[in-house]
Amino acid sequence: MAQVDEELLRMSETLRVLEDEREIVRLISAYGPAVDSGQSEAAAAIWTEDGVYDTDSAVWRGRAEIAGMVEGSFHQQLIAGGAAHVVGVPHIRIDGHRAVATCYSRVFRHGDGGFEVWRVAVNRWELVRTPEGWRTAYRTNRLLDGSEAARELLRRAGED
Amino acid sequence: MAQVDEELLRMSETLRVLEDEREIVRLISAYGPAVDSGQSEAAAAIWTEDGVYDTDSAVWRGRAEIAGMVEGSFHQQLIAGGAAHVVGVPHIRIDGHRAVATCYSRVFRHGDGGFEVWRVAVNRWELVRTPEGWRTAYRTNRLLDGSEAARELLRRAGED
Amino acid sequence: MAQVDEELLRMSETLRVLEDEREIVRLISAYGPAVDSGQSEAAAAIWTEDGVYDTDSAVWRGRAEIAGMVEGSFHQQLIAGGAAHVVGVPHIRIDGHRAVATCYSRVFRHGDGGFEVWRVAVNRWELVRTPEGWRTAYRTNRLLDGSEAARELLRRAGED
Repeated sequence: MAQVDEELLRMSETLRVLEDEREIVRLISAYGPAVDSGQSEAAAAIWTEDGVYDTDSAVWRGRAEIAGMVEGSFHQQLIAGGAAHVVGVPHIRIDGHRAVATCYSRVFRHGDGGFEVWRVAVNRWELVRTPEGWRTAYRTNRLLDGSEAARELLRRAGED
Repeated sequence: MAQVDEELLRMSETLRVLEDEREIVRLISAYGPAVDSGQSEAAAAIWTEDGVYDTDSAVWRGRAEIAGMVEGSFHQQLIAGGAAHVVGVPHIRIDGHRAVATCYSRVFRHGDGGFEVWRVAVNRWELVRTPEGWRTAYRTNRLLDGSEAARELLRRAGED
Repeated sequence: MAQVDEELLRMSETLRVLEDEREIVRLISAYGPAVDSGQSEAAAAIWTEDGVYDTDSAVWRGRAEIAGMVEGSFHQQLIAGGAAHVVGVPHIRIDGHRAVATCYSRVFRHGDGGFEVWRVAVNRWELVRTPEGWRTAYRTNRLLDGSEAARELLRRAGED
């Protein structure tokens, strides 16, 4: 039995990591569908109650502000014209009840009968495990426009 | 033993979900390589025998019609010039022998020495578990051109 | 016990495949962050010591040459202006200690206040399991510019 128990424990731990990563992928891949369809509450629920979304152009603090951004006229006009907030394959590191996922995001915008690449950015999602599951405590988004800030976030993806 | 059995059962169920999701990712990530290299049968085999591919511009019903689309002159000209049908990270919900995967797709087209973003769409893959593995029963593809149809598909990604 | 052992063995094997795939996704999704932030050693470490990166424009052989490409003036100018090397969802096949992952990559480049799609390519990663984990023995990258070479790589993604 001792050997079976040991193997069972090892498997159980590996499975836990795979489940965590799957839940994190589900969480962050829900961002695009939520904001592009204007579901402000679903978008805000990706964060913790006091989670932060920190971008080059603005910082939204807490679910109410994040929902407000989705409901605001700028975002509403963007999706009325056609927009896709595409979050890419994340590079994930889990450390107990905290995790960091780093990925590229792109916003494609429709106009004049075609599509343009409007924004290309790196995203660092600092996640925490809560009783409701993984949520975003802090998301930093920086445009890949040559700024050192974007390169710094990319560099930190590989940190141990 | 009872406790070991219980833990084994829980692990077995979790593993089943992870295997299902992996198979679904494999299935839908095979679409781009199949159509961009002109493999009409491989593309059609992603659907069930009577599966449907429903787009803004046309609806193809059954594997024969889907293969016919790949073999058709429009698609053949597209890939001769250079095209990439890129299917993104899917948001997957599994319910027994049925599943729904929602993701963005983009078609990049080569021309005049560069690349353009030709189409950006949301895809809803309604999948069924068959004796051969997961297959697509119905795939809906709607351009993110500001249409309500696209936003509706995105909204349904998060449904319970 | 025999039945429990059998189920445990089956689960252990499935888990091994899922772990391998996860490690491969981690490996190749680290490429973009490494090169876009100019971390030449981290980028080179994705390959084996004598691994090859074979593109339309050049072939780099071994970690030293790959690191040299990242440190070179062409790449440094590219990232100083803003660039995103986005590696997409891979289609993975594992066969013991070898694996093949096929995916699309896109390079977005910043300039004139906006972003352009500079390169769209198919990537075939031929991977080997080493004592340090999975590494790339040979990566082939071909532009989707209508060339037969790119279609051939895509076709081979689905090979058994």
